Amino acid sequence: MNTVVIHDPTLRDGQHAVRHQLGVAALRGYAEAADAAGIPVVEVGHGNGLGASSLQVGRAAVSDDLMLSTVREALRTSKMGVFMLPGWGTCEDLRKAVAHGADVIRVGVHCTETSLAERHLGFLREQGADAHCVLMMSHMATPAELAEHAARVVGYGARAVGIMDSAGHFLPQDVTERIGAIRGAVGDGVPVIFHGHNNLGMAVANSVAAAGAGAGIIDGCARGFGAGAGNTQLEVLVPVLERTGFRTGIDLYALLDAAEFAERELMPAPPTTGSLSIVSGLAGVFSGFKHQVLDLSGRAGVDPRDVFFELGRRQAIAGQEDLIVDVVAELSAKRAAA
Amino acid sequence: MNTVVIHDPTLRDGQHAVRHQLGVAALRGYAEAADAAGIPVVEVGHGNGLGASSLQVGRAAVSDDLMLSTVREALRTSKMGVFMLPGWGTCEDLRKAVAHGADVIRVGVHCTETSLAERHLGFLREQGADAHCVLMMSHMATPAELAEHAARVVGYGARAVGIMDSAGHFLPQDVTERIGAIRGAVGDGVPVIFHGHNNLGMAVANSVAAAGAGAGIIDGCARGFGAGAGNTQLEVLVPVLERTGFRTGIDLYALLDAAEFAERELMPAPPTTGSLSIVSGLAGVFSGFKHQVLDLSGRAGVDPRDVFFELGRRQAIAGQEDLIVDVVAELSAKRAAA
Repeated sequence: MNTVVIHDPTLRDGQHAVRHQLGVAALRGYAEAADAAGIPVVEVGHGNGLGASSLQVGRAAVSDDLMLSTVREALRTSKMGVFMLPGWGTCEDLRKAVAHGADVIRVGVHCTETSLAERHLGFLREQGADAHCVLMMSHMATPAELAEHAARVVGYGARAVGIMDSAGHFLPQDVTERIGAIRGAVGDGVPVIFHGHNNLGMAVANSVAAAGAGAGIIDGCARGFGAGAGNTQLEVLVPVLERTGFRTGIDLYALLDAAEFAERELMPAPPTTGSLSIVSGLAGVFSGFKHQVLDLSGRAGVDPRDVFFELGRRQAIAGQEDLIVDVVAELSAKRAAA
Repeated sequence: MNTVVIHDPTLRDGQHAVRHQLGVAALRGYAEAADAAGIPVVEVGHGNGLGASSLQVGRAAVSDDLMLSTVREALRTSKMGVFMLPGWGTCEDLRKAVAHGADVIRVGVHCTETSLAERHLGFLREQGADAHCVLMMSHMATPAELAEHAARVVGYGARAVGIMDSAGHFLPQDVTERIGAIRGAVGDGVPVIFHGHNNLGMAVANSVAAAGAGAGIIDGCARGFGAGAGNTQLEVLVPVLERTGFRTGIDLYALLDAAEFAERELMPAPPTTGSLSIVSGLAGVFSGFKHQVLDLSGRAGVDPRDVFFELGRRQAIAGQEDLIVDVVAELSAKRAAA
């Protein structure tokens, strides 16, 4: 029977759903509950990772230092994970995280921009840290491209590598192909990671497909806590993986208890899948664009769904918010001309 | 490219989530929106079908007669569907539904008790009605048993036959096997139906598996509207089916609009998947037991999750609520003895 290591970013990716406002008591309470369930890795941080708290993407309620010390204290057997995006986070942030006792340090980069992670992964290798690298918006690259970039980051120092379905665009067959290609490129000694989103109702099915294709590390959040349609619902994923022949080592009842805590203490309500989440999943667009798309298209009188589909055709990625302005203006002009 | 006929029980199965309290304006508004989207069949009624409004399972806000005349008036191109469970509904109810212009009449029976549907399906055959039969709690029978019962109800007069995953227990491979077995038993002339529930996050994936195995009629509800974890989310299912090579004939934007209407006017909030929904899915128990299980186990101080798993081992089905009392008493006695 194969083992899957569950990586739980509830206290990091979930932050996106509450504008990074999780408080100390919530962080401590969930970390304790996750630890009691035997979840192998509990990730914590600002939604955009180390060093990202800012006016631009939102200030977190709690500093990185306090988040890390709080969760570190709460965990007895679970490892502590952190996330960083080069640009927001720096080597200094990585050094602090290591000093705080972070066990697993994930560096995220756009799927075709892995050279951005070279310096940080090299730094972590020097520190002897367990560095992982995740390729974001991975539906924008072919399986062969992902495999090539995965091999490259292993060369930089990543001890595990994988993909995020950041737009929630994949169907199970897509995941099977990509995990297989990456496994082929990095070999058996490097665990492959899968992180799903539920825009098309496929987060659990995609994660099972990933495990079936040999992924060794799979992400899930309590109640799917996350922006928009949310992430893979952890307390559903775990028993479904167990039923399909994978061992997670997690206690089901304690896991359900942790999810109850999360529903009660971390979120106003569990995520559900609204129309724009579906459209962004279909279009392959980062759902974080939603508020800007709604605002700009509302003022211009164009259909926000058209805007999402056009952004998808242009392969817009986070940081390219200017494209929204362009697309809205063009659709508005077309509409006026019609 | 294969065609799938979408059957939409939002205004019938969704009633379970609001104690059968949908009003005339809500029924009319959703039916109009579904019709505008080109949804082939719009089913309406009390959650338990024709004739079921009662003190025992809950009185509907609107009579069967008024529900049917309201939806009939609202539909221009969509067919109107109704549901009936022998015992709650009678041949007289079926006669009324036909007189009201119901196009598709579904009879539901427990998966191994198809003889209960013989008289009603025979009556509908005499009336020349388009009678369908669904086998409920279908995870409790083997593929071969389901195939045998499916063939039997076709002999009684059903023009389509299929399965409901009433407990939300199936994974995609389970569905593939069962739809395949039924198709083999009834032949190409009889469309096979699949109706999913989302307890294990698999409703969309299971429905795609059903289509892949040759199911010709697939159910979905706006926002998954239904009790507990809800049904298959219709406006997710349709574009995912289209992307995987099936034609539904439904307009995506109008479908998303219908779902927005449903979220706003039919339900307090879209369904999410709580711990007991997960447990009932894993255990293969009707999630409608939830309130009684919670009430009785709370008073006896036993874990409701243990009660669900034990009910699953005993293959409890709706109508066997007495078993809950027995199981709670036994677990309570065991606990006292421990």
